[in-house]
Amino acid sequence: MEPLRVVVLAGGVGGARFVRGLRAHLRSLDGPSADVTVVANTGDDVWLAGLRVTPDLDSLLYTLAGVNDETRGWGRAEETERVAGELAAFGVGWPWFTLGDLDLGTCVARTSMLRDGLPLSAAVQRLAARWPIGVRLLPATDDEVETHVLTDEGELHFEEWWVRTRAALPARAFVQPGVEAARPAPGVVEAIRDADVVLLAPSNPVVSIGTILTIPGIREALAATPAPVVGLSPVIGGSVVRGMADACLTAIGVATDAGAIAQHYGPRSAGGVLDGWLVDEVDAAALPALAAAGIRAGAVPLWMTDDMATAAMAAAALRLAREPR
Amino acid sequence: MEPLRVVVLAGGVGGARFVRGLRAHLRSLDGPSADVTVVANTGDDVWLAGLRVTPDLDSLLYTLAGVNDETRGWGRAEETERVAGELAAFGVGWPWFTLGDLDLGTCVARTSMLRDGLPLSAAVQRLAARWPIGVRLLPATDDEVETHVLTDEGELHFEEWWVRTRAALPARAFVQPGVEAARPAPGVVEAIRDADVVLLAPSNPVVSIGTILTIPGIREALAATPAPVVGLSPVIGGSVVRGMADACLTAIGVATDAGAIAQHYGPRSAGGVLDGWLVDEVDAAALPALAAAGIRAGAVPLWMTDDMATAAMAAAALRLAREPR
Repeated sequence: MEPLRVVVLAGGVGGARFVRGLRAHLRSLDGPSADVTVVANTGDDVWLAGLRVTPDLDSLLYTLAGVNDETRGWGRAEETERVAGELAAFGVGWPWFTLGDLDLGTCVARTSMLRDGLPLSAAVQRLAARWPIGVRLLPATDDEVETHVLTDEGELHFEEWWVRTRAALPARAFVQPGVEAARPAPGVVEAIRDADVVLLAPSNPVVSIGTILTIPGIREALAATPAPVVGLSPVIGGSVVRGMADACLTAIGVATDAGAIAQHYGPRSAGGVLDGWLVDEVDAAALPALAAAGIRAGAVPLWMTDDMATAAMAAAALRLAREPR
Repeated sequence: MEPLRVVVLAGGVGGARFVRGLRAHLRSLDGPSADVTVVANTGDDVWLAGLRVTPDLDSLLYTLAGVNDETRGWGRAEETERVAGELAAFGVGWPWFTLGDLDLGTCVARTSMLRDGLPLSAAVQRLAARWPIGVRLLPATDDEVETHVLTDEGELHFEEWWVRTRAALPARAFVQPGVEAARPAPGVVEAIRDADVVLLAPSNPVVSIGTILTIPGIREALAATPAPVVGLSPVIGGSVVRGMADACLTAIGVATDAGAIAQHYGPRSAGGVLDGWLVDEVDAAALPALAAAGIRAGAVPLWMTDDMATAAMAAAALRLAREPR
């Protein structure tokens, strides 16, 4: 029996927790180990103080390596901010965007590799080789395509809008300048094509999963793959589980609602990306409309309170994917 | 009365201690404050882990700012190595060349400025603005001219030869590839031209002062300035005061001897760079030969044991400069 080939499209913190739960579920199974490929959002990436910062890739890396800060939710555990204090004293970087020393170590190492000419995907592979993370971690693209936010105060980098304004400045639109020339990183399209199942993590549908889908070729790969595509709602009972995704959804005219997000992704049968969709039990009322729209839907607990709860979510997503169409 | 205009050509740790003593002496004088311009060696500079490291400029900056590590002799006081541990774990950089976190903060800030297109001299000015260092700090050149060492194991960057091999690998020659196209940093030639006195710090005559003199235009500026040029010996009683300058002197065929170094620099009257030269009292026997060669020489204590001793050295150098030719 071949190992199960799973591809997950994921953002940062929420995506990382989901992948960790998926990994726990797959490790609990009898039979051959699964091949998991995680395609990470790179739209939040930014050049800062001369360093290439890739927040979502690093959240995935740290969480899967077990060195993330669980309490704060991002960055490395047992972090210090010695370098950041120096940068602030020299007036370099964004004063409202502080990177810890261990986190900066990753940024310096990655930037060094990029300056040496390595594509981001190769740099990620080298960084990830330090820990037995158990999955293949790919950036959605090696090209520097960053999400900008159009606001009444002008066009801001996503991180500035997210971190400095706490997403409080109304967003009129999200754009990825230059995305039309970007290509999926090596292995992304092939992994989707050869997958047994593709999962959309319960990440931000606009600036995480949505940004991944803007890379030319990825949406097409999802449309073409023989694998079922199943997503998990990041919204429970009309509230986002973490982050400020509602501000993003509002900007694109989508309600902060588990069913509305699935309708936004759309059924594969009608040019969308979803075969299946999991909502939380409190959102079970959304199921009939989704079924009518051609999206197989299920309702299970979607709170990623711990690895066991998250593993159960992943198991439910894989079950939904295996249901006959 | 105009302020005394002093230019100092300097290497790193020894040069920094000398300039700090000079500053103490000048502050102790009545009358207008002096204008001190320090021209720092940049031959030790290196790209490492994607960061531009400038050891001599930073030794000068930290020492004059009072944030240097006096015990270790280089880098910042109260240093930690959190980032360096990460870089080593990722296999990035030189395992034998460890930068502390505070030091890395300077390197990241400088690299960020350079990547933004600032010349090194402008970056140094911005970094130095953080502290009231009381002198103008200039790199010898804004061009990336690095000292390489020709050895039987090939051509090494100076830092690799100095730090990894502890200068134990015999040096056949020191070269600065590309130096013929380099230019002095803005202000260097003007400062030498307009100086009342030019001092050569008791730094390495080969790879610190010697490297500064390889930048086209600087030796010519020393030849042309109306100011007297006075150096201080980094060798006392046949031993180098710090570092491994003897390995450098040997490579260029100069004895580790206070008088021999002055003869190597040569008298300005015969195409060299010196009007005067200070040796330690134990080397007073060298004075007659130097006088015969056209170099006014004096013998005073040259141990930079503390700022007061170093201030007395600086005062002696300024006195020697003022002696009628």
